[in-house]
Amino acid sequence: MPSPNLNYPMLKAFRAAFLDFIADPFYLTESESIRYFPDGLLVIKEGKVEAFGDYEALKDEYIDTPITAYPGMLITPGFIDMHVHFPQIEMIGSYGEQLLEWLNKYTFPTEGKFNDKNYAQEMASFFLDELLKNGTTTAVVFATVFPQSVDAFFEESSKRNLRMIAGKVLMDRNAPDYLKDTAKSSYEQSKELIEKWHNNGRSLYAITPRFSVTSTPEQLQSAGKLLADYPDVYLHTHLSENRAEVAFVKELFPDSKNYLDTYDQAGLLGERSVFAHCVHLDDQEFQRLSEARGIIAFCPTSNLFLGSGLFNINQAKSSEYPVKVGLGTDVGGGTSLSMLQTMNEAYKVTQMRQQKLSPLQAFFLATLGGAKALCLEDKIGNFDVGKEADFIVINPRSTPLMALRNSEEVPNTLEELSERLFTLVIMGDDRAIQSTYIMGELAYEKSLIC
Amino acid sequence: MPSPNLNYPMLKAFRAAFLDFIADPFYLTESESIRYFPDGLLVIKEGKVEAFGDYEALKDEYIDTPITAYPGMLITPGFIDMHVHFPQIEMIGSYGEQLLEWLNKYTFPTEGKFNDKNYAQEMASFFLDELLKNGTTTAVVFATVFPQSVDAFFEESSKRNLRMIAGKVLMDRNAPDYLKDTAKSSYEQSKELIEKWHNNGRSLYAITPRFSVTSTPEQLQSAGKLLADYPDVYLHTHLSENRAEVAFVKELFPDSKNYLDTYDQAGLLGERSVFAHCVHLDDQEFQRLSEARGIIAFCPTSNLFLGSGLFNINQAKSSEYPVKVGLGTDVGGGTSLSMLQTMNEAYKVTQMRQQKLSPLQAFFLATLGGAKALCLEDKIGNFDVGKEADFIVINPRSTPLMALRNSEEVPNTLEELSERLFTLVIMGDDRAIQSTYIMGELAYEKSLIC
Repeated sequence: MPSPNLNYPMLKAFRAAFLDFIADPFYLTESESIRYFPDGLLVIKEGKVEAFGDYEALKDEYIDTPITAYPGMLITPGFIDMHVHFPQIEMIGSYGEQLLEWLNKYTFPTEGKFNDKNYAQEMASFFLDELLKNGTTTAVVFATVFPQSVDAFFEESSKRNLRMIAGKVLMDRNAPDYLKDTAKSSYEQSKELIEKWHNNGRSLYAITPRFSVTSTPEQLQSAGKLLADYPDVYLHTHLSENRAEVAFVKELFPDSKNYLDTYDQAGLLGERSVFAHCVHLDDQEFQRLSEARGIIAFCPTSNLFLGSGLFNINQAKSSEYPVKVGLGTDVGGGTSLSMLQTMNEAYKVTQMRQQKLSPLQAFFLATLGGAKALCLEDKIGNFDVGKEADFIVINPRSTPLMALRNSEEVPNTLEELSERLFTLVIMGDDRAIQSTYIMGELAYEKSLIC
Repeated sequence: MPSPNLNYPMLKAFRAAFLDFIADPFYLTESESIRYFPDGLLVIKEGKVEAFGDYEALKDEYIDTPITAYPGMLITPGFIDMHVHFPQIEMIGSYGEQLLEWLNKYTFPTEGKFNDKNYAQEMASFFLDELLKNGTTTAVVFATVFPQSVDAFFEESSKRNLRMIAGKVLMDRNAPDYLKDTAKSSYEQSKELIEKWHNNGRSLYAITPRFSVTSTPEQLQSAGKLLADYPDVYLHTHLSENRAEVAFVKELFPDSKNYLDTYDQAGLLGERSVFAHCVHLDDQEFQRLSEARGIIAFCPTSNLFLGSGLFNINQAKSSEYPVKVGLGTDVGGGTSLSMLQTMNEAYKVTQMRQQKLSPLQAFFLATLGGAKALCLEDKIGNFDVGKEADFIVINPRSTPLMALRNSEEVPNTLEELSERLFTLVIMGDDRAIQSTYIMGELAYEKSLIC
């Protein structure tokens, strides 16, 4: 008869303050949307959540389980970055242009380097380490037009056991020759990559036409055909970021009702379709996105950096035509990989529109909101039993200024919690991320040495 | 006969890459505006610049002078923050309101605490240490309505030998009773503080009516009388930050031509008058500011955070009606004490207006631009011989991401330099400030331990 101790190493637990979401605080009250335990316990078995709740309520049941305690820290689900370009990590902060000029001047030459698989692998490795350092555990990622850049990315993300969504970029016009594929080659290469990577471990594939400016209708159609063949694969592209882009798309697709329609007509609009930006959508496009359950990646640091415009989150989160929304850093158009800094500028964008984004809403967007948008709420996004245990340990006193602002006491009320979260939104950056855990394993820990 | 060695300890020198400005890059070309030495030498005697130039050209002359070398680093003049509230350091990142509500809900209760001189001193000390950590060596600072908060501030800034401009807030209406003074008491208290602090060491005084909303015409008039008596004292206030505020001022001053005129009529507009924000000025106000040589403090993180609007830097920097401009953090309405992060959002504001702020222009605003605006260009702002040696050592590779972005090689061309400065503008924060020197003495050095 086996001793009960044999089971012992299979379980581990974490004790701290915990916050996660069980509903959308844009539609329900904040107290109905959150779970908050000032002194909570998260029990993990084989990388998944075994139990979650108040420490006092659970402690007797897990008396033999080893506990890692993070006093004074806040644990939340890992952040989900809904739109980012891994090859652009090295060109973050490139000066002075708006979208279309910026692509030609900086982006395309940089992406050309990713023809070299070794280089791509080195950059993917650096990029993923930076994500973990910023508390991002899942991201929806543009690679480049080169299939080997996708292999490089998934090889590195698999090594780290990360739930990542990525894909090869499709571009068959309005791009330099060295970055162009064709409708046919992009179909074949994407299909091969899907077969190789989609649902391989935690990897998920996204068919990734850059945007309607750089894909012919034929290429979009062939991407739509592929998506129809693999209906649980994602679609990842850009939509309505910049006025000059919108005008250019109108010229290129005279028969489309609007920009969204250029994707819709090709069969690219579904509940796993992620559209980055959506700054200049008209009412019809919002309604159609709502109907089709398409996904918006709101990328505030990028929209400000490239002068693209102010996203209308109230319209996306309307009751009549609700659209799924998450937050994206959009590095290198974005200026930081930190989802906290992204929330900071999301708040500023809403303020500039005389709207309001509460800190709890911001944290929702970056966690369960992203997971629900991506149809991954059965796997990630909160601490429901059975979910994959990707989580982060946040230090609300990580700098002298934050230590001045936040006392050592753990917040007890919703109001205190909100206030603390807001200081993280406004002043937090990678330094606020103490540790990042992937499937219950420590994947990043902040060094004491700068 | 004294040995030449007796002079030896009086001189010290620093070797690194150096950048400063000799003219305004908004009006002249960048190459005409800057001095850049990839390998430069700064020689200091009794806290002031004794010599500055290329290392090779100067080294023989200073062969006996001890040199501190900062290989790979960039030395610039210390940053000048043109508008900041030291008592608001503890309320940075307060949630969810625009200007007038934000004042009532957060600002006034916080400022009430500064009635306690000990508390004010503790906060002033913390605030000044944070400034030095962010590379800010001069600031134009709001205290509170309590004279003891001004004493506390100047006592702490004097201890650190800082060139600071500050003053007691004047408010005699539309504020809680515990923060109100009167036209008479504010005159008397300000006069006493001027006598005590103005030109006491490096301290300079600013008569500081909060804004026309919280001062009666009588109080503004009495402030104008005081300014007339002390014409080399500064005036520091807010102007045209938010639309509701502008409308309220219009109601309160039905006889004024515009918001600026409420100050102008009281004799408060001169070449040492600093007006924070100026987001919603009309053409007439810009012209009058230009004529009177008034100063604008552009506060981008605050203008975005409070949803105030997008400052029009092109209009301020027009050839026809040029207005003096510097950059302000406006903490606690602003979200960071870092002038680098302030430049980041200044760039974003210009992008949102389809304008452009070059990295060299941004660094100009934060150094010589601020000094010239404040009529302090004979004392600070660049490395001209005889100036006070307040400078900062910037590490362009202070994080792994910045080290990826910036090679170990020192920039040689103007283009390389601009690119590097822009990475600091977009990705830099307090971590990029390696050391801060005040009058040639080390005042802050980044710890290796986080």
